[in-house]
Amino acid sequence: MQINVTDSEIDEQVHKLRAGDQRAIAKLMTYAEMNLFLASQVIKKLYKYTGNAYIIGITGAPGVGKSSLVNQMAAFYISEGHRVGIIAVDPTSPFSGGAILGDRIRMKKSFSLKDVFIRSMANRGQMGGLARATRDMIKILDAAGYEIILVETVGVGQDEIDIFKAAHTCVVIVVPGMGDEIQAIKAGIMEITDVFVVNKMDLSGVDRTIMDLETTLQLTHNSKPKKPITPAQGLFVKVNNWKPPIIKTNAITGENIPKFIQNIQTHQDFLKKNDLLPIKKLAACKNEIMDIMKFQLYKKVEDYVFKNTDVNDLIEGIIEGDIDPYSISEDILAKFVKEARILDK
Amino acid sequence: MQINVTDSEIDEQVHKLRAGDQRAIAKLMTYAEMNLFLASQVIKKLYKYTGNAYIIGITGAPGVGKSSLVNQMAAFYISEGHRVGIIAVDPTSPFSGGAILGDRIRMKKSFSLKDVFIRSMANRGQMGGLARATRDMIKILDAAGYEIILVETVGVGQDEIDIFKAAHTCVVIVVPGMGDEIQAIKAGIMEITDVFVVNKMDLSGVDRTIMDLETTLQLTHNSKPKKPITPAQGLFVKVNNWKPPIIKTNAITGENIPKFIQNIQTHQDFLKKNDLLPIKKLAACKNEIMDIMKFQLYKKVEDYVFKNTDVNDLIEGIIEGDIDPYSISEDILAKFVKEARILDK
Repeated sequence: MQINVTDSEIDEQVHKLRAGDQRAIAKLMTYAEMNLFLASQVIKKLYKYTGNAYIIGITGAPGVGKSSLVNQMAAFYISEGHRVGIIAVDPTSPFSGGAILGDRIRMKKSFSLKDVFIRSMANRGQMGGLARATRDMIKILDAAGYEIILVETVGVGQDEIDIFKAAHTCVVIVVPGMGDEIQAIKAGIMEITDVFVVNKMDLSGVDRTIMDLETTLQLTHNSKPKKPITPAQGLFVKVNNWKPPIIKTNAITGENIPKFIQNIQTHQDFLKKNDLLPIKKLAACKNEIMDIMKFQLYKKVEDYVFKNTDVNDLIEGIIEGDIDPYSISEDILAKFVKEARILDK
Repeated sequence: MQINVTDSEIDEQVHKLRAGDQRAIAKLMTYAEMNLFLASQVIKKLYKYTGNAYIIGITGAPGVGKSSLVNQMAAFYISEGHRVGIIAVDPTSPFSGGAILGDRIRMKKSFSLKDVFIRSMANRGQMGGLARATRDMIKILDAAGYEIILVETVGVGQDEIDIFKAAHTCVVIVVPGMGDEIQAIKAGIMEITDVFVVNKMDLSGVDRTIMDLETTLQLTHNSKPKKPITPAQGLFVKVNNWKPPIIKTNAITGENIPKFIQNIQTHQDFLKKNDLLPIKKLAACKNEIMDIMKFQLYKKVEDYVFKNTDVNDLIEGIIEGDIDPYSISEDILAKFVKEARILDK
């Protein structure tokens, strides 16, 4: 899908977005998803309006009740006078249209349309760049004045871990009887979780699950030396002095939801009081910049290969069978840098 | 996991692999999965022995009977005197250890160990590069003298479509009652399928499924103008004059398996007779080279950012909030190319 969008069209939509026009949000999101160049144009123009939203990542396996919890959270924040943006990366989420359509409609009805904006990322970003695209959606909602942004993911794969890292507070949901799953979330996700939710608290085994989580958390916290982290060092910063609370909830009846949200607030206060938000932001941004570079660079090489017939000759050398793809790739990259085509674009 | 593997160690393992040592195959596969540099060393050394295997991609949703069909195919090819390599990318495959372990053992027992080599890619490549890693596994098995290589995937996501494109014959499996699924495979997979299998032919609705497939195939074939394709042009070539056959099978009882395999043979003969294998190879290789470049390039930029404190200063500029991540990324890339660090490595 190729589309021409002029600079002034983006300006106009950003202007409308700032004035509260929801159609402008959708339009800018569509532009940002189309290609990397349009995404960069959109973000460059609205970046100065970002930085005001509080971003909460919610992750968990399918069936743990993520969408119900997100629903409850949105209702709570809206009742407190906030505007809430929801980004559903999970393809099985009702917000993504993966489940019963009726659920989604019922959910939308419970809010005033101007207070909530739901964006599904299901079936998007298949061409790579799901994390990049999601971060752009967050920025667009941020610039549009949504103060709370809820990002719902399944938490599987590198892209989803990257998305999680863009959040200020990371919430992981489990349900009773998920011993193995607790093992599974350990890798990559456990270390960056700020608040744990044990949902479906009416099920038996809820206390056992909390105990299992606590044991695993102690192992995670004690196994690593607390080495000092410079802002520029790590791609993500684990703030060591925060002990993630574990809250049991019932996302259907709403039991313990206020307590859960209070814990998110406590985490937010902790980050502010200890001046950790800039460090967290820097770590997330470094991650993001590396990701953008990857796509920008690749786009340039792709263009270079497409435009240069002699590069195609190099590739066609593979047919003879006397040169392997790794060597050809190295030859093309050396040529690419030598000709410094990267600077032309 | 960092490991030092010397050049002569790789030489030795390649020598052993050529002499039929299965442990050498496993070792070289492990090296190739560790990092990009080791992968390139391994492939460069054994590339000259590749190009003899016939690669068959088998894809389908979980539960359609992929592993049973792969099992039947392997048994057939081995009984014909071939050595068979199996690469299971599907994490739910019994070959990947995702299902009942007993199944896997039972399957292994039915073959002589020297005639079959099974490699699971489940839980690998989470850091990106699943398609790249799988292509390397194919080359290692090819160099080790496996004449038939079966690659089993779920067919979801860009990585799996890329893996599919590395095959000479692409097989898609569906089962009766999957109307929606047929819709789903249309995008990206349908166009590159050479043989369709309707498995579980004992279920009712099998003829309806075949009819649905035929209708969809006609739409796919007629909707696009048959424009001529130059070898260097497309990343993948659809060979227009091949009409994909639809075979109903029962992968448990083995019914129609010989007929199914005969159709794969017919496709292979078609490719040979029309001299299409070089074109198919070029298209697949181009795809592969672009993929390798992406990883090589990103590795170099990552090293560059890690080693240069002034680049870190650029990134830290994001904290002030006056420059957006896209602009910072562009600045770093310009600097990177100017300093041409890419040539140092």
